[in-house]
Amino acid sequence: MKRVMLTVAYDGTNYHGWQLQPNVITIESVLNEKLSDLFHEEIRVIGASRTDTGVHALGNIAVFDTEARMPAEKISYALNQRLPEDIRIQNSREVPLEFHPRHQNSRKTYEYRILNREFPMPVYRLYSHFTYVPLDVERMQKAADYLVGKHDFKSFCSVNTVAETTVRTIYTIQVEKTNEMITIRVIGSGFLYNMVRIIAGTLMEVGRGNMEPEQITDILAALDRTKAGPTAPACGLTLVSYEYEDGIGY
Amino acid sequence: MKRVMLTVAYDGTNYHGWQLQPNVITIESVLNEKLSDLFHEEIRVIGASRTDTGVHALGNIAVFDTEARMPAEKISYALNQRLPEDIRIQNSREVPLEFHPRHQNSRKTYEYRILNREFPMPVYRLYSHFTYVPLDVERMQKAADYLVGKHDFKSFCSVNTVAETTVRTIYTIQVEKTNEMITIRVIGSGFLYNMVRIIAGTLMEVGRGNMEPEQITDILAALDRTKAGPTAPACGLTLVSYEYEDGIGY
Repeated sequence: MKRVMLTVAYDGTNYHGWQLQPNVITIESVLNEKLSDLFHEEIRVIGASRTDTGVHALGNIAVFDTEARMPAEKISYALNQRLPEDIRIQNSREVPLEFHPRHQNSRKTYEYRILNREFPMPVYRLYSHFTYVPLDVERMQKAADYLVGKHDFKSFCSVNTVAETTVRTIYTIQVEKTNEMITIRVIGSGFLYNMVRIIAGTLMEVGRGNMEPEQITDILAALDRTKAGPTAPACGLTLVSYEYEDGIGY
Repeated sequence: MKRVMLTVAYDGTNYHGWQLQPNVITIESVLNEKLSDLFHEEIRVIGASRTDTGVHALGNIAVFDTEARMPAEKISYALNQRLPEDIRIQNSREVPLEFHPRHQNSRKTYEYRILNREFPMPVYRLYSHFTYVPLDVERMQKAADYLVGKHDFKSFCSVNTVAETTVRTIYTIQVEKTNEMITIRVIGSGFLYNMVRIIAGTLMEVGRGNMEPEQITDILAALDRTKAGPTAPACGLTLVSYEYEDGIGY
Protein backbone atom coordinates (compact mmCIF):
# COMPACT_ATOMS: atom_id res chain seq x y z
CA MET A 1 0.00 0.00 0.00
CA LYS A 2 1.11 3.54 -0.60
CA ARG A 3 -0.10 6.98 0.42
CA VAL A 4 -0.49 9.50 -2.40
CA MET A 5 -0.70 13.27 -2.05
CA LEU A 6 -2.65 15.29 -4.60
CA THR A 7 -2.41 19.03 -5.17
CA VAL A 8 -5.94 19.95 -6.18
CA ALA A 9 -7.09 23.10 -8.00
CA TYR A 10 -10.77 23.87 -8.43
CA ASP A 11 -13.34 26.46 -9.30
CA GLY A 12 -15.67 26.26 -6.29
CA THR A 13 -18.61 27.98 -8.01
CA ASN A 14 -20.57 24.79 -8.72
CA TYR A 15 -19.71 22.78 -5.60
CA HIS A 16 -21.08 22.62 -2.09
CA GLY A 17 -17.58 23.08 -0.76
CA TRP A 18 -14.96 20.42 -0.14
CA GLN A 19 -16.49 18.20 2.49
CA LEU A 20 -18.57 15.11 1.81
CA GLN A 21 -22.28 15.71 2.50
CA PRO A 22 -25.39 13.76 1.60
CA ASN A 23 -27.26 14.65 -1.61
CA VAL A 24 -24.92 17.38 -2.86
CA ILE A 25 -21.83 17.41 -5.05
CA THR A 26 -18.63 18.36 -3.28
CA ILE A 27 -14.98 18.34 -4.32
CA GLU A 28 -14.36 15.44 -1.95
CA SER A 29 -17.25 13.40 -3.35
CA VAL A 30 -16.03 13.86 -6.92
CA LEU A 31 -12.45 12.92 -6.02
CA ASN A 32 -13.61 9.80 -4.16
CA GLU A 33 -15.81 8.75 -7.06
CA LYS A 34 -13.23 9.30 -9.81
CA LEU A 35 -10.35 7.74 -7.85
CA SER A 36 -12.49 4.70 -6.99
CA ASP A 37 -13.38 4.35 -10.69
CA LEU A 38 -9.76 4.67 -11.70
CA PHE A 39 -8.38 2.11 -9.26
CA HIS A 40 -11.38 -0.26 -9.00
CA GLU A 41 -11.21 -0.02 -5.21
CA GLU A 42 -12.99 2.14 -2.64
CA ILE A 43 -10.88 5.29 -2.21
CA ARG A 44 -11.48 7.96 0.45
CA VAL A 45 -9.41 11.12 0.33
CA ILE A 46 -8.48 13.23 3.35
CA GLY A 47 -8.36 16.95 2.58
CA ALA A 48 -6.11 19.59 4.10
CA SER A 49 -8.62 22.44 3.94
CA ARG A 50 -12.38 21.86 3.94
CA THR A 51 -13.21 24.93 1.91
CA ASP A 52 -16.77 26.32 1.96
CA THR A 53 -19.28 26.45 -0.88
CA GLY A 54 -18.04 28.81 -3.58
CA VAL A 55 -14.45 29.09 -2.33
CA HIS A 56 -11.78 28.37 -4.95
CA ALA A 57 -8.39 26.67 -4.74
CA LEU A 58 -5.20 26.73 -6.73
CA GLY A 59 -3.53 24.21 -4.44
CA ASN A 60 -5.56 22.38 -1.83
CA ILE A 61 -4.05 19.11 -0.65
CA ALA A 62 -5.61 15.64 -0.42
CA VAL A 63 -4.11 12.28 0.45
CA PHE A 64 -5.41 8.75 -0.04
CA ASP A 65 -4.16 5.20 0.28
CA THR A 66 -4.18 2.74 -2.55
CA GLU A 67 -3.00 -0.74 -3.46
CA ALA A 68 -2.68 0.34 -7.09
CA ARG A 69 0.65 -0.13 -8.82
CA MET A 70 0.35 3.02 -10.98
CA PRO A 71 3.34 5.26 -10.16
CA ALA A 72 2.16 8.15 -7.96
CA GLU A 73 3.48 10.73 -10.45
CA LYS A 74 1.23 9.37 -13.21
CA ILE A 75 -1.97 9.60 -11.19
CA SER A 76 -2.44 13.34 -11.89
CA TYR A 77 -2.64 12.66 -15.65
CA ALA A 78 -4.95 9.64 -15.33
CA LEU A 79 -7.26 11.37 -12.86
CA ASN A 80 -7.48 14.61 -14.85
CA GLN A 81 -8.84 12.58 -17.78
CA ARG A 82 -11.83 11.66 -15.62
CA LEU A 83 -12.42 14.86 -13.68
CA PRO A 84 -14.80 17.65 -14.75
CA GLU A 85 -12.95 20.67 -16.11
CA ASP A 86 -13.51 22.73 -12.96
CA ILE A 87 -11.28 20.37 -10.94
CA ARG A 88 -7.69 19.71 -12.00
CA ILE A 89 -4.92 17.84 -10.20
CA GLN A 90 -1.72 19.88 -10.33
CA ASN A 91 0.60 17.30 -8.87
CA SER A 92 0.57 13.76 -7.47
CA ARG A 93 3.34 12.09 -5.49
CA GLU A 94 3.96 9.43 -2.89
CA VAL A 95 4.30 10.54 0.74
CA PRO A 96 5.15 8.58 3.90
CA LEU A 97 2.27 6.44 5.21
CA GLU A 98 2.14 8.50 8.40
CA PHE A 99 1.72 11.79 6.52
CA HIS A 100 -1.59 13.51 7.41
CA PRO A 101 -2.40 16.78 5.63
CA ARG A 102 -3.98 18.43 8.68
CA HIS A 103 -1.64 17.19 11.41
CA GLN A 104 1.58 18.38 9.81
CA ASN A 105 2.98 21.85 10.29
CA SER A 106 2.34 23.89 7.18
CA ARG A 107 2.26 27.36 5.80
CA LYS A 108 -1.07 28.27 4.19
CA THR A 109 -1.62 31.10 1.74
CA TYR A 110 -5.07 32.51 1.03
CA GLU A 111 -6.10 35.40 -1.19
CA TYR A 112 -9.26 37.44 -0.88
CA ARG A 113 -10.02 39.57 -3.96
CA ILE A 114 -12.27 42.63 -4.04
CA LEU A 115 -13.25 44.40 -7.26
CA ASN A 116 -13.64 48.06 -6.30
CA ARG A 117 -15.17 50.20 -9.05
CA GLU A 118 -18.45 51.79 -10.05
CA PHE A 119 -20.01 48.77 -11.82
CA PRO A 120 -19.41 45.03 -11.57
CA MET A 121 -17.30 43.49 -14.34
CA PRO A 122 -18.88 40.18 -15.46
CA VAL A 123 -15.64 38.34 -16.24
CA TYR A 124 -14.42 38.87 -12.67
CA ARG A 125 -17.70 38.12 -10.89
CA LEU A 126 -17.01 34.47 -10.02
CA TYR A 127 -13.56 35.04 -8.53
CA SER A 128 -13.87 38.29 -6.60
CA HIS A 129 -16.28 40.17 -4.37
CA PHE A 130 -17.60 43.38 -5.89
CA THR A 131 -18.17 46.64 -4.03
CA TYR A 132 -18.66 50.14 -5.43
CA VAL A 133 -17.95 51.72 -2.03
CA PRO A 134 -14.45 53.21 -2.34
CA LEU A 135 -11.96 51.36 -0.15
CA ASP A 136 -8.77 52.96 1.17
CA VAL A 137 -6.07 50.33 0.71
CA GLU A 138 -3.55 52.10 2.95
CA ARG A 139 -5.97 52.06 5.86
CA MET A 140 -6.68 48.39 5.19
CA GLN A 141 -2.97 47.55 5.24
CA LYS A 142 -2.53 49.49 8.49
CA ALA A 143 -5.35 47.50 10.08
CA ALA A 144 -3.97 44.25 8.69
CA ASP A 145 -0.62 44.87 10.35
CA TYR A 146 -2.30 44.58 13.78
CA LEU A 147 -3.38 41.03 12.91
CA VAL A 148 0.11 39.79 12.11
CA GLY A 149 1.67 37.56 14.77
CA LYS A 150 0.40 35.02 17.29
CA HIS A 151 -3.03 35.99 18.62
CA ASP A 152 -6.22 34.50 19.95
CA PHE A 153 -8.46 34.97 16.89
CA LYS A 154 -11.72 34.13 18.67
CA SER A 155 -13.24 37.41 17.40
CA PHE A 156 -12.31 36.40 13.85
CA CYS A 157 -13.90 32.99 13.63
CA SER A 158 -17.40 31.68 13.19
CA VAL A 159 -19.25 31.08 16.47
CA ASN A 160 -19.75 27.53 15.20
CA THR A 161 -16.02 26.83 15.44
CA VAL A 162 -15.23 23.67 17.37
CA ALA A 163 -11.43 24.13 17.38
CA GLU A 164 -9.62 23.21 20.61
CA THR A 165 -7.84 26.54 20.64
CA THR A 166 -8.48 29.75 18.73
CA VAL A 167 -4.83 30.84 18.91
CA ARG A 168 -3.23 31.06 15.50
CA THR A 169 -0.19 32.72 13.93
CA ILE A 170 -0.40 34.98 10.89
CA TYR A 171 2.99 35.49 9.25
CA THR A 172 2.09 38.24 6.79
CA ILE A 173 -0.90 40.09 5.36
CA GLN A 174 -0.47 42.20 2.25
CA VAL A 175 -3.20 44.42 0.87
CA GLU A 176 -2.46 45.41 -2.72
CA LYS A 177 -4.41 47.16 -5.44
CA THR A 178 -3.78 46.54 -9.14
CA ASN A 179 -6.03 48.65 -11.32
CA GLU A 180 -9.42 48.15 -9.66
CA MET A 181 -8.71 44.80 -7.99
CA ILE A 182 -7.73 44.71 -4.32
CA THR A 183 -6.01 41.53 -3.17
CA ILE A 184 -5.66 40.64 0.51
CA ARG A 185 -2.97 37.95 0.73
CA VAL A 186 -2.78 36.21 4.10
CA ILE A 187 -0.08 33.70 5.03
CA GLY A 188 -0.31 31.80 8.30
CA SER A 189 0.26 28.58 10.18
CA GLY A 190 -3.44 27.81 10.22
CA PHE A 191 -6.85 29.40 9.99
CA LEU A 192 -10.09 29.00 11.92
CA TYR A 193 -13.48 28.49 10.30
CA ASN A 194 -14.34 31.59 8.23
CA MET A 195 -11.28 33.40 9.59
CA VAL A 196 -9.96 34.78 6.29
CA ARG A 197 -13.43 35.90 5.20
CA ILE A 198 -14.02 37.66 8.54
CA ILE A 199 -10.60 39.32 8.26
CA ALA A 200 -11.55 40.47 4.74
CA GLY A 201 -14.95 41.73 5.93
CA THR A 202 -13.31 43.63 8.80
CA LEU A 203 -10.61 45.17 6.60
CA MET A 204 -13.35 46.33 4.23
CA GLU A 205 -15.08 48.10 7.15
CA VAL A 206 -11.78 49.87 7.86
CA GLY A 207 -11.25 50.61 4.17
CA ARG A 208 -14.62 52.34 3.85
CA GLY A 209 -14.10 54.35 7.02
CA ASN A 210 -16.55 52.57 9.34
CA MET A 211 -13.74 51.41 11.63
CA GLU A 212 -10.31 52.76 12.50
CA PRO A 213 -7.20 50.60 11.91
CA GLU A 214 -6.31 50.90 15.62
CA GLN A 215 -9.61 49.24 16.60
CA ILE A 216 -8.22 45.89 15.48
CA THR A 217 -6.37 45.62 18.80
CA ASP A 218 -9.62 46.02 20.74
CA ILE A 219 -11.44 43.55 18.49
CA LEU A 220 -8.73 40.93 19.05
CA ALA A 221 -8.80 41.56 22.83
CA ALA A 222 -12.60 41.26 23.00
CA LEU A 223 -12.58 37.57 21.99
CA ASP A 224 -16.06 38.22 20.65
CA ARG A 225 -17.16 37.52 17.06
CA THR A 226 -19.72 40.35 17.11
CA LYS A 227 -16.95 42.95 17.46
CA ALA A 228 -15.36 42.14 14.08
CA GLY A 229 -16.81 43.00 10.66
CA PRO A 230 -19.10 40.79 8.59
CA THR A 231 -18.01 37.56 6.88
CA ALA A 232 -17.09 38.54 3.32
CA PRO A 233 -18.71 36.46 0.53
CA ALA A 234 -17.14 33.11 -0.39
CA CYS A 235 -16.51 33.78 -4.10
CA GLY A 236 -13.73 36.28 -3.29
CA LEU A 237 -11.67 33.65 -1.46
CA THR A 238 -9.02 31.44 -3.02
CA LEU A 239 -6.82 28.92 -1.23
CA VAL A 240 -3.52 29.53 -2.99
CA SER A 241 -1.16 27.01 -1.42
CA TYR A 242 -0.18 24.64 1.36
CA GLU A 243 3.54 24.30 2.00
CA TYR A 244 4.72 21.65 4.43
CA GLU A 245 7.80 22.24 6.53
CA ASP A 246 9.61 19.20 5.22
CA GLY A 247 9.32 20.51 1.69
CA ILE A 248 6.27 18.44 0.81
CA GLY A 249 3.50 20.51 -0.71
CA TYR A 250 2.53 22.71 -3.59
CA MET B 1 -36.06 61.23 -29.53
CA LYS B 2 -32.49 60.68 -28.46
CA ARG B 3 -29.71 58.24 -29.31
CA VAL B 4 -28.04 56.57 -26.36
CA MET B 5 -24.66 54.83 -26.37
CA LEU B 6 -24.03 51.95 -23.96
CA THR B 7 -20.65 50.53 -23.00
CA VAL B 8 -21.42 46.86 -22.45
CA ALA B 9 -19.31 44.31 -20.53
CA TYR B 10 -20.18 40.63 -20.59
CA ASP B 11 -19.02 37.12 -19.89
CA GLY B 12 -19.70 35.41 -23.21
CA THR B 13 -19.61 31.87 -21.80
CA ASN B 14 -23.37 31.38 -21.71
CA TYR B 15 -24.37 33.32 -24.85
CA HIS B 16 -24.53 32.50 -28.54
CA GLY B 17 -22.49 35.58 -29.25
CA TRP B 18 -23.74 39.13 -29.74
CA GLN B 19 -25.94 38.94 -32.77
CA LEU B 20 -29.69 38.31 -32.72
CA GLN B 21 -30.55 34.80 -33.92
CA PRO B 22 -33.70 32.74 -33.70
CA ASN B 23 -34.15 30.35 -30.75
CA VAL B 24 -30.93 31.18 -28.89
CA ILE B 25 -29.99 33.74 -26.26
CA THR B 26 -27.55 36.39 -27.41
CA ILE B 27 -26.24 39.59 -25.82
CA GLU B 28 -28.24 41.61 -28.35
CA SER B 29 -31.47 39.72 -27.61
CA VAL B 30 -31.10 40.27 -23.87
CA LEU B 31 -30.36 43.98 -24.29
CA ASN B 32 -33.36 44.46 -26.62
CA GLU B 33 -35.64 42.63 -24.21
CA LYS B 34 -34.52 44.45 -21.05
CA LEU B 35 -34.46 47.89 -22.69
CA SER B 36 -37.94 47.33 -24.16
CA ASP B 37 -39.17 46.32 -20.69
CA LEU B 38 -37.57 49.34 -19.10
CA PHE B 39 -38.95 51.92 -21.54
CA HIS B 40 -42.26 50.22 -22.49
CA GLU B 41 -41.40 50.66 -26.16
CA GLU B 42 -39.78 48.41 -28.76
CA ILE B 43 -36.02 49.00 -28.54
CA ARG B 44 -33.45 47.60 -31.00
CA VAL B 45 -29.79 48.12 -30.26
CA ILE B 46 -27.03 48.36 -32.87
CA GLY B 47 -23.76 46.83 -31.73
CA ALA B 48 -20.23 47.87 -32.62
CA SER B 49 -18.71 44.39 -32.57
CA ARG B 50 -20.76 41.24 -33.21
CA THR B 51 -18.63 39.00 -31.04
CA ASP B 52 -18.82 35.21 -31.48
CA THR B 53 -20.16 32.61 -29.08
CA GLY B 54 -17.95 32.45 -26.00
CA VAL B 55 -16.05 35.70 -26.65
CA HIS B 56 -16.00 38.15 -23.72
CA ALA B 57 -16.13 41.94 -23.58
CA LEU B 58 -15.08 44.61 -21.13
CA GLY B 59 -16.34 47.41 -23.36
CA ASN B 60 -18.40 46.59 -26.43
CA ILE B 61 -20.56 49.47 -27.68
CA ALA B 62 -24.27 49.55 -28.48
CA VAL B 63 -26.56 52.41 -29.44
CA PHE B 64 -30.33 52.68 -29.49
CA ASP B 65 -32.97 55.34 -29.96
CA THR B 66 -35.66 56.08 -27.43
CA GLU B 67 -38.44 58.51 -26.69
CA ALA B 68 -37.90 57.99 -22.96
CA ARG B 69 -37.24 61.01 -20.80
CA MET B 70 -34.85 59.22 -18.44
CA PRO B 71 -31.49 61.04 -18.55
CA ALA B 72 -29.03 58.96 -20.60
CA GLU B 73 -26.54 58.83 -17.71
CA LYS B 74 -29.11 57.10 -15.48
CA ILE B 75 -29.88 54.31 -17.93
CA SER B 76 -26.82 52.25 -16.95
CA TYR B 77 -28.10 51.99 -13.36
CA ALA B 78 -31.70 51.21 -14.32
CA LEU B 79 -30.70 48.64 -16.93
CA ASN B 80 -28.18 46.86 -14.69
CA GLN B 81 -31.00 46.23 -12.22
CA ARG B 82 -32.73 44.13 -14.89
CA LEU B 83 -29.78 42.43 -16.57
CA PRO B 84 -28.39 39.01 -15.60
CA GLU B 85 -25.13 39.26 -13.70
CA ASP B 86 -23.02 38.19 -16.68
CA ILE B 87 -23.93 41.40 -18.54
CA ARG B 88 -23.23 44.82 -17.02
CA ILE B 89 -23.52 48.27 -18.54
CA GLN B 90 -20.38 50.28 -17.72
CA ASN B 91 -21.55 53.62 -19.07
CA SER B 92 -24.55 55.22 -20.78
CA ARG B 93 -24.62 58.60 -22.48
CA GLU B 94 -26.35 60.57 -25.19
CA VAL B 95 -24.67 60.75 -28.60
CA PRO B 96 -25.62 62.66 -31.78
CA LEU B 97 -28.52 61.09 -33.71
CA GLU B 98 -26.21 60.42 -36.67
CA PHE B 99 -23.71 58.45 -34.56
CA HIS B 100 -23.36 54.85 -35.77
CA PRO B 101 -21.02 52.55 -33.82
CA ARG B 102 -19.70 50.75 -36.90
CA HIS B 103 -19.46 53.66 -39.35
CA GLN B 104 -17.33 55.88 -37.17
CA ASN B 105 -13.55 55.72 -37.07
CA SER B 106 -12.45 53.96 -33.92
CA ARG B 107 -9.55 52.27 -32.24
CA LYS B 108 -10.34 48.75 -31.06
CA THR B 109 -8.40 46.81 -28.47
CA TYR B 110 -8.64 43.04 -28.16
CA GLU B 111 -6.79 40.67 -25.86
CA TYR B 112 -6.18 36.99 -26.44
CA ARG B 113 -5.05 35.09 -23.34
CA ILE B 114 -3.22 31.77 -23.30
CA LEU B 115 -2.51 29.82 -20.11
CA ASN B 116 0.77 28.03 -20.76
CA ARG B 117 1.66 25.47 -18.10
CA GLU B 118 1.60 21.74 -17.46
CA PHE B 119 -2.02 21.44 -16.24
CA PRO B 120 -5.11 23.60 -16.76
CA MET B 121 -6.06 25.87 -13.85
CA PRO B 122 -9.85 25.74 -13.32
CA VAL B 123 -10.31 29.36 -12.23
CA TYR B 124 -8.79 30.59 -15.52
CA ARG B 125 -10.52 28.13 -17.83
CA LEU B 126 -13.41 30.37 -18.93
CA TYR B 127 -11.27 33.38 -19.83
CA SER B 128 -8.17 31.91 -21.45
CA HIS B 129 -7.11 29.17 -23.83
CA PHE B 130 -4.99 26.47 -22.23
CA THR B 131 -2.01 24.76 -23.82
CA TYR B 132 0.73 22.71 -22.19
CA VAL B 133 2.98 23.01 -25.27
CA PRO B 134 5.69 25.51 -24.29
CA LEU B 135 5.38 28.76 -26.24
CA ASP B 136 8.31 31.09 -26.88
CA VAL B 137 6.96 34.58 -26.27
CA GLU B 138 9.92 36.32 -27.92
CA ARG B 139 9.35 34.44 -31.16
CA MET B 140 5.65 35.28 -30.96
CA GLN B 141 6.41 38.99 -30.53
CA LYS B 142 8.82 38.89 -33.46
CA ALA B 143 6.13 37.35 -35.65
CA ALA B 144 3.54 39.83 -34.38
CA ASP B 145 5.72 42.76 -35.44
CA TYR B 146 5.30 41.70 -39.10
CA LEU B 147 1.53 42.15 -38.75
CA VAL B 148 1.71 45.73 -37.55
CA GLY B 149 0.75 48.35 -40.15
CA LYS B 150 -1.68 48.54 -43.04
CA HIS B 151 -2.00 45.16 -44.79
CA ASP B 152 -4.44 43.06 -46.72
CA PHE B 153 -5.38 40.54 -44.02
CA LYS B 154 -7.21 38.13 -46.36
CA SER B 155 -5.06 35.24 -45.02
CA PHE B 156 -6.12 36.15 -41.50
CA CYS B 157 -9.88 36.15 -41.86
CA SER B 158 -12.55 33.51 -42.10
CA VAL B 159 -13.34 32.42 -45.67
CA ASN B 160 -16.93 33.37 -44.82
CA THR B 161 -16.02 37.04 -44.55
CA VAL B 162 -18.24 39.29 -46.63
CA ALA B 163 -16.29 42.51 -46.01
CA GLU B 164 -15.87 44.85 -49.01
CA THR B 165 -12.16 45.04 -48.41
CA THR B 166 -9.81 42.92 -46.33
CA VAL B 167 -7.32 45.76 -45.86
CA ARG B 168 -7.00 46.76 -42.22
CA THR B 169 -4.50 48.63 -40.05
CA ILE B 170 -3.00 47.19 -36.89
CA TYR B 171 -1.43 49.86 -34.71
CA THR B 172 0.31 47.63 -32.16
CA ILE B 173 0.55 44.02 -31.04
CA GLN B 174 2.16 43.21 -27.71
CA VAL B 175 2.84 39.67 -26.56
CA GLU B 176 3.46 39.57 -22.82
CA LYS B 177 3.83 36.81 -20.28
CA THR B 178 2.98 37.26 -16.61
CA ASN B 179 3.62 34.12 -14.61
CA GLU B 180 2.05 31.44 -16.80
CA MET B 181 -0.42 33.66 -18.66
CA ILE B 182 0.46 34.95 -22.13
CA THR B 183 -1.54 37.96 -23.31
CA ILE B 184 -1.63 39.02 -26.95
CA ARG B 185 -2.93 42.59 -27.02
CA VAL B 186 -3.91 43.85 -30.47
CA ILE B 187 -4.93 47.43 -31.21
CA GLY B 188 -6.23 48.35 -34.63
CA SER B 189 -8.62 50.42 -36.72
CA GLY B 190 -10.81 47.42 -37.38
CA PHE B 191 -10.80 43.65 -37.54
CA LEU B 192 -12.18 41.09 -39.97
CA TYR B 193 -14.28 38.10 -38.96
CA ASN B 194 -12.13 35.79 -36.75
CA MET B 195 -9.04 37.92 -37.46
CA VAL B 196 -7.77 38.20 -33.87
CA ARG B 197 -8.34 34.48 -33.22
CA ILE B 198 -6.48 33.55 -36.44
CA ILE B 199 -3.64 35.89 -35.46
CA ALA B 200 -3.53 34.20 -32.03
CA GLY B 201 -3.59 30.73 -33.61
CA THR B 202 -0.79 31.69 -35.99
CA LEU B 203 1.36 33.25 -33.26
CA MET B 204 0.93 30.06 -31.25
CA GLU B 205 2.28 28.05 -34.21
CA VAL B 206 5.32 30.35 -34.23
CA GLY B 207 5.64 30.13 -30.44
CA ARG B 208 5.78 26.33 -30.48
CA GLY B 209 8.27 26.28 -33.35
CA ASN B 210 6.03 25.04 -36.17
CA MET B 211 6.47 28.31 -38.10
CA GLU B 212 9.21 30.92 -38.30
CA PRO B 213 8.44 34.56 -37.46
CA GLU B 214 9.64 35.60 -40.92
CA GLN B 215 6.95 33.43 -42.57
CA ILE B 216 4.31 35.99 -41.57
CA THR B 217 5.35 38.11 -44.57
CA ASP B 218 4.67 35.21 -46.94
CA ILE B 219 1.38 34.39 -45.24
CA LEU B 220 0.20 37.99 -45.63
CA ALA B 221 1.28 38.03 -49.29
CA ALA B 222 -0.50 34.75 -50.07
CA LEU B 223 -3.96 36.24 -49.44
CA ASP B 224 -5.00 32.69 -48.59
CA ARG B 225 -6.63 31.64 -45.31
CA THR B 226 -5.10 28.16 -45.47
CA LYS B 227 -1.57 29.57 -45.13
CA ALA B 228 -2.17 31.01 -41.65
CA GLY B 229 -2.51 29.02 -38.44
CA PRO B 230 -5.75 27.66 -36.96
CA THR B 231 -8.45 29.83 -35.42
CA ALA B 232 -7.73 29.90 -31.68
CA PRO B 233 -10.70 29.03 -29.38
CA ALA B 234 -13.22 31.76 -28.55
CA CYS B 235 -12.93 31.69 -24.74
CA GLY B 236 -9.42 33.22 -24.88
CA LEU B 237 -10.67 36.36 -26.62
CA THR B 238 -11.83 39.54 -24.90
CA LEU B 239 -12.93 42.75 -26.57
CA VAL B 240 -11.31 45.29 -24.27
CA SER B 241 -12.38 48.65 -25.70
CA TYR B 242 -13.68 50.80 -28.51
CA GLU B 243 -12.42 54.35 -28.61
CA TYR B 244 -13.93 56.77 -31.09
CA GLU B 245 -11.84 59.52 -32.64
CA ASP B 246 -14.04 62.31 -31.41
CA GLY B 247 -13.54 61.18 -27.84
CA ILE B 248 -16.77 59.22 -27.65
CA GLY B 249 -16.24 55.69 -26.38
CA TYR B 250 -15.14 53.62 -23.47
